[in-house]
Amino acid sequence: MKIAVINETSAADRNADIMAALEKSKHEIYNVGMTKNFAKPELTYIHTGLLAAMLLYYKKVDFVVAGCGTGQGFLNSVLQYPGVICGLIASPLDAWLFTQINGGNCISLRLNQGYGWASNENLKFIFERIFSVEIGCGYPPHRQESQQQSLKTLKNLSISTHKEFSEIIKSLPESVVRPVIDFPGVMNILNVDSIRDKKFIEVVAKYI
Amino acid sequence: MKIAVINETSAADRNADIMAALEKSKHEIYNVGMTKNFAKPELTYIHTGLLAAMLLYYKKVDFVVAGCGTGQGFLNSVLQYPGVICGLIASPLDAWLFTQINGGNCISLRLNQGYGWASNENLKFIFERIFSVEIGCGYPPHRQESQQQSLKTLKNLSISTHKEFSEIIKSLPESVVRPVIDFPGVMNILNVDSIRDKKFIEVVAKYI
Amino acid sequence: MKIAVINETSAADRNADIMAALEKSKHEIYNVGMTKNFAKPELTYIHTGLLAAMLLYYKKVDFVVAGCGTGQGFLNSVLQYPGVICGLIASPLDAWLFTQINGGNCISLRLNQGYGWASNENLKFIFERIFSVEIGCGYPPHRQESQQQSLKTLKNLSISTHKEFSEIIKSLPESVVRPVIDFPGVMNILNVDSIRDKKFIEVVAKYI
Amino acid sequence: MKIAVINETSAADRNADIMAALEKSKHEIYNVGMTKNFAKPELTYIHTGLLAAMLLYYKKVDFVVAGCGTGQGFLNSVLQYPGVICGLIASPLDAWLFTQINGGNCISLRLNQGYGWASNENLKFIFERIFSVEIGCGYPPHRQESQQQSLKTLKNLSISTHKEFSEIIKSLPESVVRPVIDFPGVMNILNVDSIRDKKFIEVVAKYI
Repeated sequence: MKIAVINETSAADRNADIMAALEKSKHEIYNVGMTKNFAKPELTYIHTGLLAAMLLYYKKVDFVVAGCGTGQGFLNSVLQYPGVICGLIASPLDAWLFTQINGGNCISLRLNQGYGWASNENLKFIFERIFSVEIGCGYPPHRQESQQQSLKTLKNLSISTHKEFSEIIKSLPESVVRPVIDFPGVMNILNVDSIRDKKFIEVVAKYI
Repeated sequence: MKIAVINETSAADRNADIMAALEKSKHEIYNVGMTKNFAKPELTYIHTGLLAAMLLYYKKVDFVVAGCGTGQGFLNSVLQYPGVICGLIASPLDAWLFTQINGGNCISLRLNQGYGWASNENLKFIFERIFSVEIGCGYPPHRQESQQQSLKTLKNLSISTHKEFSEIIKSLPESVVRPVIDFPGVMNILNVDSIRDKKFIEVVAKYI
Repeated sequence: MKIAVINETSAADRNADIMAALEKSKHEIYNVGMTKNFAKPELTYIHTGLLAAMLLYYKKVDFVVAGCGTGQGFLNSVLQYPGVICGLIASPLDAWLFTQINGGNCISLRLNQGYGWASNENLKFIFERIFSVEIGCGYPPHRQESQQQSLKTLKNLSISTHKEFSEIIKSLPESVVRPVIDFPGVMNILNVDSIRDKKFIEVVAKYI
Repeated sequence: MKIAVINETSAADRNADIMAALEKSKHEIYNVGMTKNFAKPELTYIHTGLLAAMLLYYKKVDFVVAGCGTGQGFLNSVLQYPGVICGLIASPLDAWLFTQINGGNCISLRLNQGYGWASNENLKFIFERIFSVEIGCGYPPHRQESQQQSLKTLKNLSISTHKEFSEIIKSLPESVVRPVIDFPGVMNILNVDSIRDKKFIEVVAKYI
């Protein structure tokens, strides 16, 4: 699985902890966002939300690990876009249940609130659990069928309620889109040439 | 403030605890969803998400208190719609920070996972904190301006990324919309006649 | 390692969850306390504290897993006796740190407060962590020496501040001692004949 | 009520947060321990445990607010002495239940583990709840009688299982006692002249 780690500005100092916690993972890890608090160029949760959603939508990565100070900002930002299922994950149990029940492709971590000594160890425990169970299998057994049905409905619904991604980019202000496109490394991982959505290529082209 | 309490089927037995915890609130409380686990007619988090979003979008209520077993399902469901800012709230501190930083109009509660003895008291503490601070003022002081800016951007962005509400209803399957429209009391609180969005009235009319 | 599971009356219904969570452990598990809430004969946290301490002191078991509604009652009860180091453990991280830093021989679990759906899974995660690291090794590395020193001092101190165990039993009211001695199975695991502390044998003999 | 705040060395930097959180309290607050991590003279949780117990036993204060990195070290240290009921308190609900059910005179706070941004606000919420309810009244109502009975038994038991305080001091190594006696301000708040326990005065006199 390809996993993007995407930190916004207020908790970017935690990026080193996240990368260390994923070190022993057998997945391909891409460190796409910020690595130092309030550095320049800066990405707020508004920008990391768009970036995460774009990478997931165009299948550049399979999973996004992100967050912000409380986790709530990134969560709300990334869930503005189609194709995202994101959990707010604070404990190993949260992680283990979310993967099974919600079958998500994104997690938002609480990286300032209650983030102190040994919280880096908790990240390791969270990552171990989140990748230890079958995605979207349901829990507990007698609820599996109903949960899988809801999950399938949610995925379709996400397409129904949102505009097309190219339309979205077109209608967003430059202050949201440009910092994402211009952020070092983004065009590389996005690899626009490999994307078949011509309208998206067109609208992104205006930013390059 | 008008507050809707909306429970889905798997944790509807908690509805009594939520209502009791809001009893001393000075707000107008509307109990709109289920009150008993797995009763009929049934609303899953797919349905309560649509219902919550609709009531907020058409300003029938100012705030929604909802949730599900882990809180993650409703959260993802309601955030598929425009105009919603929803927090996953498990502690008084979560509540207090969310109101100030994220200025949300909706919370998702964890109503089965880790919900045990005295969790009803924790709900009281959560509600006391969530309505004790200024919505969207920012925290701490030196981050207020930046947070208020992000919040404003998020609200606009939510309109930019989603279809119009009437279009959304039109493109959703009947299995999502009908249980909501048909649920006892919903048409009453929705009060379609008072809504100026003619396209919405038209599309809802097909369900009546 | 020999592990005793000891439930008191108010959360004895959780005993099945604890036993199930320890099922795959390679340790010898003894289920010594209650298995059903408010059944007769009944042990309160006052009694399970004495029982746990006695089994540890006379080396009948190496570790005790116990608790009560909030965990605080048993904790305070068992720590009235010499030779006990007990942690209040609510998360896998608590467990992992406690074993390393405090090198304890006892844990108190929160078995009613916030004990709900999937909390049995959390117990599994806790047990996995608590037995996954070296007891009393210290954490993090640069604090190991100082922590090991404190731990050694604490163990000696526990002997210095308490009366001898036989004196303790002698000075406790019958209402504390008798329910423990009379509880089915206790004399069996205690195996008084194997204990060399003659004063203890004498004082216990009065209860038989 | 007279409250002593007593920080040990590894989390002494949190002392300012604790003092700020108690600022609006109507109680008399005594800041008795360390105020800066690893400063000299240094008190470990071994020393703060003895100090807290001594102040409570001789009624120099009514309540102690203390802790350590995880909270488990101080908890185990202070509970080695007679007359202490100490809770490990991490949330407002913990606080609210502990006061009512356990009627304690001491709390141990988790001051490094998971102590991060906004944890100072959580301290305020904890203190508000801990002093908002009747000490030892019991919760919920139908369990009050049984809990009050257990609490009474526990208090008596604490006297029965421990040596006399003067004996304890006599049997402790100088490395435990001297740093406490010599710590700036301790002899002042202890005010030995006002203590009627002559054996205690004698044994302390050797350290002066």
